[in-house]
Amino acid sequence: MRLEYGPSVARLHKLRIELINTGTELLLGNVLNTHQQWLCRRLFEAGYRVERQVCVPDTGEAIQQALREALARADLVICTGGLGPTSDDLTRDLVAQLLGCKLVMDEQVRGVIRDFFAKRNRPQPARTEVQALVPEGARVLPNAVGTAPGLAMEVAAGDFRDARSWLFMLPGPPRELHPMFMQHALPMIRSLLPLEQRLACRTLRTSGIGESMVEERIAGPLDELVRGGLELGYCARTGEVDVRFVGSAPLVSEAEQIVRKILGEYVFGIDDEKIEEVLVRLLAERKQTLAIAESCTGGLIDHRITNVPGASAVLLAGLVTYSNEAKQKFVGVKAESLKEHGAVSEVVAREMATGVRQALGADYGLSVTGIAGPSGGSAEKPVGTVFIGLAGGDRVLAKKMFNPFDRETFKHVTSQQALDILRRFVVKTA
Amino acid sequence: MRLEYGPSVARLHKLRIELINTGTELLLGNVLNTHQQWLCRRLFEAGYRVERQVCVPDTGEAIQQALREALARADLVICTGGLGPTSDDLTRDLVAQLLGCKLVMDEQVRGVIRDFFAKRNRPQPARTEVQALVPEGARVLPNAVGTAPGLAMEVAAGDFRDARSWLFMLPGPPRELHPMFMQHALPMIRSLLPLEQRLACRTLRTSGIGESMVEERIAGPLDELVRGGLELGYCARTGEVDVRFVGSAPLVSEAEQIVRKILGEYVFGIDDEKIEEVLVRLLAERKQTLAIAESCTGGLIDHRITNVPGASAVLLAGLVTYSNEAKQKFVGVKAESLKEHGAVSEVVAREMATGVRQALGADYGLSVTGIAGPSGGSAEKPVGTVFIGLAGGDRVLAKKMFNPFDRETFKHVTSQQALDILRRFVVKTA
Repeated sequence: MRLEYGPSVARLHKLRIELINTGTELLLGNVLNTHQQWLCRRLFEAGYRVERQVCVPDTGEAIQQALREALARADLVICTGGLGPTSDDLTRDLVAQLLGCKLVMDEQVRGVIRDFFAKRNRPQPARTEVQALVPEGARVLPNAVGTAPGLAMEVAAGDFRDARSWLFMLPGPPRELHPMFMQHALPMIRSLLPLEQRLACRTLRTSGIGESMVEERIAGPLDELVRGGLELGYCARTGEVDVRFVGSAPLVSEAEQIVRKILGEYVFGIDDEKIEEVLVRLLAERKQTLAIAESCTGGLIDHRITNVPGASAVLLAGLVTYSNEAKQKFVGVKAESLKEHGAVSEVVAREMATGVRQALGADYGLSVTGIAGPSGGSAEKPVGTVFIGLAGGDRVLAKKMFNPFDRETFKHVTSQQALDILRRFVVKTA
Repeated sequence: MRLEYGPSVARLHKLRIELINTGTELLLGNVLNTHQQWLCRRLFEAGYRVERQVCVPDTGEAIQQALREALARADLVICTGGLGPTSDDLTRDLVAQLLGCKLVMDEQVRGVIRDFFAKRNRPQPARTEVQALVPEGARVLPNAVGTAPGLAMEVAAGDFRDARSWLFMLPGPPRELHPMFMQHALPMIRSLLPLEQRLACRTLRTSGIGESMVEERIAGPLDELVRGGLELGYCARTGEVDVRFVGSAPLVSEAEQIVRKILGEYVFGIDDEKIEEVLVRLLAERKQTLAIAESCTGGLIDHRITNVPGASAVLLAGLVTYSNEAKQKFVGVKAESLKEHGAVSEVVAREMATGVRQALGADYGLSVTGIAGPSGGSAEKPVGTVFIGLAGGDRVLAKKMFNPFDRETFKHVTSQQALDILRRFVVKTA
């Protein structure tokens, strides 16, 4: 049993878990490392915490050094990448070398790889057979959507540290890793390394309030719980602040109640709920529909909503009315309004919201018109100026926001604000 | 000077650079670590390679251990996170402790922080002043969009390793880190650690061909260059394969020529060009316009195109015709076609493409109709079935694809295919 003290917290950890992500493309910055987030999240949901993550290039020396260091400290090491068929896929060989065991051709895996190509009527490149070489003693984790199997190996006590440990090797491509981890690796981890105590984690997701202000409001009221063992963390992203609690279930539950009471409507959801998921659920529960006319957000609001299963019951259409002609033709914006106020104006935002709602016969019409930049701004309407319109019930409203960010952040923040404005409106409209 | 041997390559490195990303939220999987990719990419573009990246939680012990290990090996250590005002922001204190120096109140930074709040008419939380505490001897890197300054410190020879090294501490939020790095940190790194030799890197981005097949075709022809020092790597993502060359400029240039000759049209761009960037550029050069009718991709194609500066010259409108009614009303799909063939059919894809093109008077009409899942499939049209339609010149075509993936991957792959089909069509249509 190992006790670690955080700033004011005692944490009980019986297991130390480390991740190693291999891949030169990760260190050249060509590819985003999504494994870290995905694996850490899945492990935490199962009650396990990752203590360290490392990324190394595809060189023998770097991979072996990282493995050696991690195995000297951790009960479980999960290593991703390097299991494919190409010349820079070294993990199998390196691990066999490091653990002093032979690579053996696994006939069952070889057959699976052959079938993979046969089923798809594709010729099988000869090199793909190396993926059927398995370190002696390793357990094979089947790959349902690719050719490289995962591998799980016991590392004997005394090899790198006093106690025994486990080394899992998983494929690099996310769509192969994800099902393999959920269906094979995680169940195996659960049975090999059962937990005695599970911590609860709850994140409250807020929108529309800054990080320092959140802390100022809740730190005092939570102080007693923190001294009693609650771990409190903040994570600020543009347009959102997460408040995170980790601790025993009763502590976490009490902390949530306290903070919800203080922050009220600023809290839009929990854990990794996105605003769009909350919104689609609210509308589906009320059997209400939505139509969207967006300009500067360019399809992002539609895209976010349609990522949510069940969106088709809620979203009738999304119109990316990117030109003035499209605004007039599809959502009935008046030529005079465009001439007198300009496309980026409260008047036009209201007409877009009303127009798209009527055109589709939806319960709500949501609109966005603004200047994403980098060009198109003026002294009166600088880049970042945006109007969000909303038509629902017998009301039409428009809000002006100022989001002076790079184009992609502008789109994200504006879509966040539009979805949140709609969310609050729907919640209030019984 | 340090020589490292990769699989068949000698690499000259005079500098060892390591990244440390701090943040418990990263190891709980709450937040995606984008710093790794962004910093590695910016450094590589400037000629520097990162040899290792580590992520540790917000605990004193973990951060100090990671710093100690990195400083024992590297010439330059860049550490992100932990510079904010909240209770889990420990980096300043830990570094001061580790390097045995005092924290001193920097009056200029203090003034900047006060101004930040004053300018925005926001009350200044008292705790934000801790961000003006600076380890003695550190250089301050100004923060143009937030309150926490970055810090750069020289670490004396003998403290952690024989040679002197540099430690940079940068804020966690990406929109603060990015400008600070480009405007202050990187120029400082360039002057403190000048390079003697720069390597060239080129990535050829391909679509529509599998990784093993790419390797089978190009590995032989490139073998001589590889033995001459070219580093060759592959990175496969769903629907794309990157071929990466690193080496001297002449080697890389020759490798590119060889591979372009072999792979031809499969190559859609270089480095981190996205298909949509290539497409917008092609259309803008030809002064041609585009209208899109998408259903199952739900706005993603529009969103991708409108991420590209200059898209407004090219995209007239994007219609997310998510319901059958919307398909009829906005792009003129015939009721009989929907009845006889169903929304997900070649006939409807062609009508959508022709209809949206005519409605906007665009040069090209692009359409997508399919079944993203998880529900909605049938024996005849399983989840993943999708038709991509294209109207341009005097031609109308439709392609059937089968993308049996989770919803988000389905949307991504389908949008990729649609954009690539349009790209090849535009290129051929002179």
